[in-house]
Amino acid sequence: MINRLIAKIQQTNAPIVVGLDPTLKLVPRHLQKAAFAELGETLEGAAEAIWQYNKGLVDAICDLIPAVKPQIAMYEQFGIPGLAAFQKTVDYCKEKGLIVIGDVKRGDIGSTSESYAIAHLGKVRIGEREHYSFNEDFATVNPYLGSDGVKPFMKVCKEEKKGIFVLVKTSNPSSGEFQDRLIDGRPLYEIVGEKVAEWGADCMGDSYSYVGAVVGATYPEQGKVLRKLMPKTFILVPGYGAQGGKGADLVHFFNEDGLGAIINSSRGIIAAYQQEKYARFGEEGYADAARAAVIDMREDIAQALAAGR
Amino acid sequence: MINRLIAKIQQTNAPIVVGLDPTLKLVPRHLQKAAFAELGETLEGAAEAIWQYNKGLVDAICDLIPAVKPQIAMYEQFGIPGLAAFQKTVDYCKEKGLIVIGDVKRGDIGSTSESYAIAHLGKVRIGEREHYSFNEDFATVNPYLGSDGVKPFMKVCKEEKKGIFVLVKTSNPSSGEFQDRLIDGRPLYEIVGEKVAEWGADCMGDSYSYVGAVVGATYPEQGKVLRKLMPKTFILVPGYGAQGGKGADLVHFFNEDGLGAIINSSRGIIAAYQQEKYARFGEEGYADAARAAVIDMREDIAQALAAGR
Repeated sequence: MINRLIAKIQQTNAPIVVGLDPTLKLVPRHLQKAAFAELGETLEGAAEAIWQYNKGLVDAICDLIPAVKPQIAMYEQFGIPGLAAFQKTVDYCKEKGLIVIGDVKRGDIGSTSESYAIAHLGKVRIGEREHYSFNEDFATVNPYLGSDGVKPFMKVCKEEKKGIFVLVKTSNPSSGEFQDRLIDGRPLYEIVGEKVAEWGADCMGDSYSYVGAVVGATYPEQGKVLRKLMPKTFILVPGYGAQGGKGADLVHFFNEDGLGAIINSSRGIIAAYQQEKYARFGEEGYADAARAAVIDMREDIAQALAAGR
Repeated sequence: MINRLIAKIQQTNAPIVVGLDPTLKLVPRHLQKAAFAELGETLEGAAEAIWQYNKGLVDAICDLIPAVKPQIAMYEQFGIPGLAAFQKTVDYCKEKGLIVIGDVKRGDIGSTSESYAIAHLGKVRIGEREHYSFNEDFATVNPYLGSDGVKPFMKVCKEEKKGIFVLVKTSNPSSGEFQDRLIDGRPLYEIVGEKVAEWGADCMGDSYSYVGAVVGATYPEQGKVLRKLMPKTFILVPGYGAQGGKGADLVHFFNEDGLGAIINSSRGIIAAYQQEKYARFGEEGYADAARAAVIDMREDIAQALAAGR
């Protein structure tokens, strides 16, 4: 799957993943109105609204990008109907040829971590049969519990030819509270990064490992260090756009081969219509606004990479 | 909710939480057979089997214990039908007067963490209405992302009078890979524990905070240090029984007041019928075996506490 992700990045010329993180504040009013008219102001109504919103977005941008990253929390808040919308979104994106990174940040131990891995990447055995559950292509994983938490994911990834991105240095302001603490003079995120490289060496695709890392765009200097520490690790980079990361900050997340990183933007794309810059599309034109924002983001990254080399 | 948990512990005289972590290997064959006959070897069939299993367990033990802790991964692996069984289990346990600790180990940042908090502990706003989604009483939370990840949970806990347990030192063999690394001479789990105490000070119940901690029974010495470092923090202690933690190991997790900790056992209770000790109940008597195992566990803990004082 890491090989397929790289091929899709090269084909689209866009190291971009769009975060499908629909809160109701972002969903255009006409979609909410239609869903609520049909199903009421219920969990089912909200789930229908976010599903229609996603569908419109995916239809508008699926030819431009290699991958999407639905954030499961945004669906989980709407309970079972919300998770059914997550499932529908995953299936639809795959139908449209997109690679799906489930942003689930799961992590537990032993058989429990294996259950999460099965839920999101693998097949569950029931009697004599096997079934896929959510069946994303990649999942994000929290490393706090150590190898016991990550290895069950690696096992399922090997069986299914899928991948994970392990949190290393997250994009949020307080990520340093624990991640930056010094251990023998080196920050914890470097220790975790080293471990990710070690895990990854056991799970190699053609040129990159299918054990990747998450490093926030908001920490470009740390990204530079981690890039060197984990040369074969693909880095998923959140924090571009709405969280403050800029194109120029991204250069050091990439390797000399122009690969090695994929940049996420969520609100900056899916709610582009709420920005002054894209206001001309209007609320009903939210999908076209998203398309324009993807094109601008692709250009911003290309320019930054050209300038940085 | 922390006050209610303490009252229930005192009333049952059992600082015990039973982990409802149903894998199909643990579900008695007669329940699997009945569910598969009705719904096939499908996700729906598996979900029905684990729900019937849980119902039998809860009916047999609900008068003996204050709380249950369903591990959502075990349900998530069966997709939407599995999560519907999780929901049904949470609702049923609450109907039976049990406190429900959702073992979800979620953790993200800002609005995403808030969405998880809403999903599991709070209400989601849809138009003019508000709805509960999974609506557990407590949730477990991963601290790797720092305050940005935990504070949205604290906000929802305050609104809903609910609580969280933050992972500090987990019970698994590799928990030390990151958690034991020394920072200024002190292990990371102490730094996290201190932070938990700090967060907790802002969220006090009558005698304990509703920001609790998870510390594994398999690390009694670390438990002793953490107990002192977080005097007002309730500690959820996994790792008793199947993972190797013994009654005598538990003493130091408790305070002088005999409170401050709640001990989890999962397989040791719910699959007691698979142990030689409880084989007399037979597979169909799995619920009675669980009841006997709870009574033995209560006795084991009481003896250890009496001996340790």
